[in-house]
Amino acid sequence: MPYTAPFAEQRFVLDVIADLPGLAALPQYANATPDMVDAILSESAKLASNVFAPLNPIGDKTHAKLANRVVTLPPGFADAYRLYIEGGWAGLGVAESHGGQGLPFAVAVAVQEQLTSANMAFALCMMLSQGAIEALAVHASPDLQDRYLAKLVSGEWTGTMNLTEPGAGSDVGALKTRAEPAPDGSYRIKGTKIYITWGEHDAAENIVHLVLARLPDAPPGIKGISLFICPKFRPDGSRNDLVCTGLEHKLGIHASPTCTMSFGDNDNCTGYLVGAEGAGMRAMFTMMNNARVQVGLQGVAIAEAATQHAVHFARQRVQSAKFGAGRDPVRIIDHADVRRTLMTCRALTEATRALVYLNASAVDRSHAGDVAGTGLADFLTPISKAWATDTGVEVASLALQVFGGMGYVEETGAAQFLRDARIAPIYEGTNGIQALDLVGRKLGLDGGAHWQELFAQIRDTIGDLTAHADLKTIAPWLDDALAATQAATIWMTGANNPDDIAAGATPFLRMMGLTLGGWLLAKQALTAAAYLASGNGDPAFLTAKITTARFYAEQILPQVAALSGPVTRGAALLYAIPEADLAA
Amino acid sequence: MPYTAPFAEQRFVLDVIADLPGLAALPQYANATPDMVDAILSESAKLASNVFAPLNPIGDKTHAKLANRVVTLPPGFADAYRLYIEGGWAGLGVAESHGGQGLPFAVAVAVQEQLTSANMAFALCMMLSQGAIEALAVHASPDLQDRYLAKLVSGEWTGTMNLTEPGAGSDVGALKTRAEPAPDGSYRIKGTKIYITWGEHDAAENIVHLVLARLPDAPPGIKGISLFICPKFRPDGSRNDLVCTGLEHKLGIHASPTCTMSFGDNDNCTGYLVGAEGAGMRAMFTMMNNARVQVGLQGVAIAEAATQHAVHFARQRVQSAKFGAGRDPVRIIDHADVRRTLMTCRALTEATRALVYLNASAVDRSHAGDVAGTGLADFLTPISKAWATDTGVEVASLALQVFGGMGYVEETGAAQFLRDARIAPIYEGTNGIQALDLVGRKLGLDGGAHWQELFAQIRDTIGDLTAHADLKTIAPWLDDALAATQAATIWMTGANNPDDIAAGATPFLRMMGLTLGGWLLAKQALTAAAYLASGNGDPAFLTAKITTARFYAEQILPQVAALSGPVTRGAALLYAIPEADLAA
Repeated sequence: MPYTAPFAEQRFVLDVIADLPGLAALPQYANATPDMVDAILSESAKLASNVFAPLNPIGDKTHAKLANRVVTLPPGFADAYRLYIEGGWAGLGVAESHGGQGLPFAVAVAVQEQLTSANMAFALCMMLSQGAIEALAVHASPDLQDRYLAKLVSGEWTGTMNLTEPGAGSDVGALKTRAEPAPDGSYRIKGTKIYITWGEHDAAENIVHLVLARLPDAPPGIKGISLFICPKFRPDGSRNDLVCTGLEHKLGIHASPTCTMSFGDNDNCTGYLVGAEGAGMRAMFTMMNNARVQVGLQGVAIAEAATQHAVHFARQRVQSAKFGAGRDPVRIIDHADVRRTLMTCRALTEATRALVYLNASAVDRSHAGDVAGTGLADFLTPISKAWATDTGVEVASLALQVFGGMGYVEETGAAQFLRDARIAPIYEGTNGIQALDLVGRKLGLDGGAHWQELFAQIRDTIGDLTAHADLKTIAPWLDDALAATQAATIWMTGANNPDDIAAGATPFLRMMGLTLGGWLLAKQALTAAAYLASGNGDPAFLTAKITTARFYAEQILPQVAALSGPVTRGAALLYAIPEADLAA
Repeated sequence: MPYTAPFAEQRFVLDVIADLPGLAALPQYANATPDMVDAILSESAKLASNVFAPLNPIGDKTHAKLANRVVTLPPGFADAYRLYIEGGWAGLGVAESHGGQGLPFAVAVAVQEQLTSANMAFALCMMLSQGAIEALAVHASPDLQDRYLAKLVSGEWTGTMNLTEPGAGSDVGALKTRAEPAPDGSYRIKGTKIYITWGEHDAAENIVHLVLARLPDAPPGIKGISLFICPKFRPDGSRNDLVCTGLEHKLGIHASPTCTMSFGDNDNCTGYLVGAEGAGMRAMFTMMNNARVQVGLQGVAIAEAATQHAVHFARQRVQSAKFGAGRDPVRIIDHADVRRTLMTCRALTEATRALVYLNASAVDRSHAGDVAGTGLADFLTPISKAWATDTGVEVASLALQVFGGMGYVEETGAAQFLRDARIAPIYEGTNGIQALDLVGRKLGLDGGAHWQELFAQIRDTIGDLTAHADLKTIAPWLDDALAATQAATIWMTGANNPDDIAAGATPFLRMMGLTLGGWLLAKQALTAAAYLASGNGDPAFLTAKITTARFYAEQILPQVAALSGPVTRGAALLYAIPEADLAA
């Protein structure tokens, strides 16, 4: 299926929500001039549409394959990866001091969105490498940076994240992989890791595995975990003692090799300590926070691609007369029920995109030393990750439905979007974990400053809407959503029983996501109205922005209040049925 | 994954919601004594658990395969089908006058639920045959019945439904297959049909295709359609001129051969007219209404199986300490967030089951000549079909999430449930078509008598709840849901613009489903409380029934009011963005 980058939309959200002009005014993002960002997004759009998208169905059908411990990618992927390196895309968001182009993360995210819409399984490789770069840039010694960072930034090497073990999934602290100090200052790593995305493949010269392991005398739990680099090939060119022993057969992202990795089968896996002993989780969180925003982005990207695909189909497929309107068959886009589906897809896509871009922008402000930016980024991350990925699945399923029977057969590609999207609520911390992170850590961050600040900004937006002749009808919907979300937040921050808090976490995160999404669309509508009034920009695009914000307010925001009860009912009823009686 | 039939639950819903005692009091269902129904459901549970369930993952991996125009089922399926015939299951719900066992459809539905939970792709074969039996029993001449019905009722032959063509999906009236009268009184059929479920296979001696086609002089549209039997083998044993030319590669139900059927490639496909010329759609609707209830049932069945599977996993998997409770890892069923997910799955499964069983019971009353039963069955059918199938997908996805990463790899089977479930909102009329049927035809049926009667019954239940010391907390939730649904119904019946009605149809159907589900659970809670008070039945089961009703009321019913706005906003905004601007 062809993919067209939503260039105007991306630029608008970068400007209005991610405050790209504000970022570009900071010394470290001075490269992010409007012309430069335009040029970048136009070029990456070509890579996405012309190179990544055509490989998407091929990867889905062919899968990455393992034979004799070698992983072979589907045909065309290795060549496409070379084009990615040659374009310099791997270093886009990396500081110039590390050999990158020094552009904001928000811009890198816009590029990554395009690549992910076009081919999520492939773009995962790039995502993992970006996380590895981030972790090494922050935590590795200059010596390790010299040896590993440059090749990751050029894209010649790729990076991975090795956390999960069979008995340690959500509970990372339970991991058992061991690291023994060796006389030369390196370590010998031994253990098995599972679900390692792009853990082995044939498109890059070397793979830099970031591996969490325990020293012999390490304390139990998270504090005993250290981070190591285990390169596929050691600096002297010799093959390290690590191997892919299996690939998962998955629901989707078939082109992405999900590896079982065995380290040190011959007691000769060389690892290099990153940061201090016992500081592994801190380093891994650097990588993981970046990755969580990018997984949220996957939800946006699949929603965008699936929506495009469904709109394209609905404009061509002729079937049945309109409801109550004679016998002449029309294209299905003319049916009100299909139109509702497509508008829902569109509104949810734009709302989640705005949230993820705002989150990325906060990461940029954080990197520039803005403490409030750090707090905001931390606060938003679980919401971006969980709400955008749940929404990505929802939109992919709605889009599939537009195709009718043709959505269920694999030829159209609608089913692939749903299958690919379904991993995102699971990995990088399940959405349940994100919800607990939100209520357990993020709500109380800096004394609640971040949700208070966000709510104040939403109130400002409601004020602006109310004062606006054309947009005031949006205000009451957003006001109701804010009132319910605020009441739920106050309940959450006042609750004492951990079970009650945990019981409400998932619907609470959903309230937050839905409300923030509605706010960010309303903000865009206000800007669009101002641009229209001043004759600035494409009227069709700006008018559509306003319509989408209104649709979301009327049709989607009412869900927020319906979640108040579920958030605040407590846990008692959840445990009332003995577990043995929960199912036949 | 093992499957255990929810015997106590099924019996309870049959008694309390489907009014099995009332049905058994009717002469034609006199066989449905409690002992008989117990014996049947125990036996079918064994068939489901021991024969159908073990084949489910095999069918998913192996697929039905086409080679040289012969379809081969996955290993074990043909043998299992023989056991199904030998058990006499095919004739369970067929009148004794046609050689069946004369049991109510509601009982046949309970059996079919078990088989579908165990193996949806396989149970589809039985479902299609039951529809064919129904159509022939009502519309075929005694002569055709003599030749075709007995072997379908015994299960030796299977039946299919041939509506869809490449240009005629939801719009059945657009079909082009032709039927030419032949001198011997039969017809020559010519045309191509697609998406023909179980259109060709090797488990039965013969296949009875029910084919919609047009006579040469037929008027355009639905009125020109006639129904024909095209047997795979003619009465003289010769092979008819019809052939499977292709199988679809689908997201799920891989063991179910979805065929492209070509009739009359050599101008020699014999067809026999069923009913009058031009009366094909009436006959097909007989079959389709039965099938729509049974597709709704597929949603229930997958929800049940997926929930069992997730509960089983959650009771075993140890991961992480409880939120806010130290460091000792617990089984994930002890985490409040997982427990919420499982309770949601359970509540939705029970609510949809009650609705579908009520619908089946109304079909039985209709068959017994009860006009109000006919109207109720017609009214409920689109709600059962659409709401239960949407819910089946939702529950399968929630259940998958409980498995974390293990849900995304195919080995566990969690992903298969989601893939299989996803067809049900599409076939037998997409859920969008069901919503238009509800607002366009069913709301006005008999002057609105059926929704008025249902609302009156819900009000009675609210009264009973309010008067009940232990259950009165459920009443306000149900009252709010009823008030919103009633207001939306009145809006719908008063709206004049077809676009506005169509625009609200899908959320309106959802309101109806959610409210009816909550009502039926509340009714069961009232009965459970009465049984508990009188020491009648298993206290654990009855107490769990009450808990589930309460959970649904508190956690799920609030969604109803949130749909009021979406139902009544009208269509204007849906068409505000020019279609060319709907997606990039």
